[in-house]
Amino acid sequence: MRGKFISFEGPEGGGKSTQAQTLADILRSEGKTVLVTREPGGTRLAEKIRGLLREELEDPPVARSEVLLFLAARAQIVAQVIQPALARGDWVICDRFADSTFAYQGYGRGIDVARLRLLNDFATEGLLPDLTILLDVPPEVSRARLAARQAATATTADRIERAGCAFHRRLRDGFLDLAKAEPERFAVIDASGSRDAVAGQVWSAVRKLVNL
Amino acid sequence: MRGKFISFEGPEGGGKSTQAQTLADILRSEGKTVLVTREPGGTRLAEKIRGLLREELEDPPVARSEVLLFLAARAQIVAQVIQPALARGDWVICDRFADSTFAYQGYGRGIDVARLRLLNDFATEGLLPDLTILLDVPPEVSRARLAARQAATATTADRIERAGCAFHRRLRDGFLDLAKAEPERFAVIDASGSRDAVAGQVWSAVRKLVNL
Repeated sequence: MRGKFISFEGPEGGGKSTQAQTLADILRSEGKTVLVTREPGGTRLAEKIRGLLREELEDPPVARSEVLLFLAARAQIVAQVIQPALARGDWVICDRFADSTFAYQGYGRGIDVARLRLLNDFATEGLLPDLTILLDVPPEVSRARLAARQAATATTADRIERAGCAFHRRLRDGFLDLAKAEPERFAVIDASGSRDAVAGQVWSAVRKLVNL
Repeated sequence: MRGKFISFEGPEGGGKSTQAQTLADILRSEGKTVLVTREPGGTRLAEKIRGLLREELEDPPVARSEVLLFLAARAQIVAQVIQPALARGDWVICDRFADSTFAYQGYGRGIDVARLRLLNDFATEGLLPDLTILLDVPPEVSRARLAARQAATATTADRIERAGCAFHRRLRDGFLDLAKAEPERFAVIDASGSRDAVAGQVWSAVRKLVNL
């Protein structure tokens, strides 16, 4: 039986990577083989593309180049990692996928979302997650969490994280719009609560897939 | 007055970069400001993408990722280099542009050319060259020239150059098809002759643009 593909979406500071790991642990305890990965990244080439996207400060990608780099990384992880894992019957949990492109580059940067869907379809050959968990937090909460993380790890905000308040509001509204348009694929979870409370809500959304 | 944009196309070993330089020298002697660049490349980011395309042997891009990387590099050089130069009234000569995507990834690798045109339009915001010079050579000639160049410079064939004979024949037929479909944009030049003979033919194709 083909595996299931779950993506986590939402702004930085919403707890995506923590919740992805917690969900993977639960699924493993249910006997599933689970691959946890992230986007952009997840293959050697895609991680190098991630580096270009985040660290090329002297000649940062223009908006269209940024989209195409994200999609190049996605085409690689879909073909080399996600599709083979699903075909083996494994579960795949991905920290960000297509909806991040629609939210960040579409709603955030103003590129036509319908056009982004066509480009994304080319990159993924039409693959969409079976379930997308949107960890929704108000911009104030995600910004405060990010600031705390940066203070704790002595890192600085990258190019995308430094974008202004208006950008982050458009981003959140964008994610919520996307979820509204595909209610059968999305589970929207209020991620401003405790880690355990959020994990409980994630699991109740995923459990339905396990029983299929 | 807006500058003119000329691309050189054709297989490796057809003399594109030599002819591009010769044409630039002639145009400069006519008083034009000329920028000679190449694709993929021409900006710091785009040259790094070129590196990923040519040197990532452990995790080489799948066909769709390859297309998207070429287009990401193109979006960057169009926005940061080509459009600003044309707006200043400069002439731009580019060693490869959109038609290489259609020929290599379309005819060569079998990706639908109509779809590639849509993707390319996104990357370039619709920019096409005013004139495309196709340096046409039979596969035997281009392969022999390439082998000679590699022997002279002690380099080895890269991933694309190593593709087989059938690929190179599809490539040549593809370029010729593209030229046939847009005869007003393309000048097809038999590049199996001497360097000077080819340069003469190139100049007679370009001269019309100079007089406009």
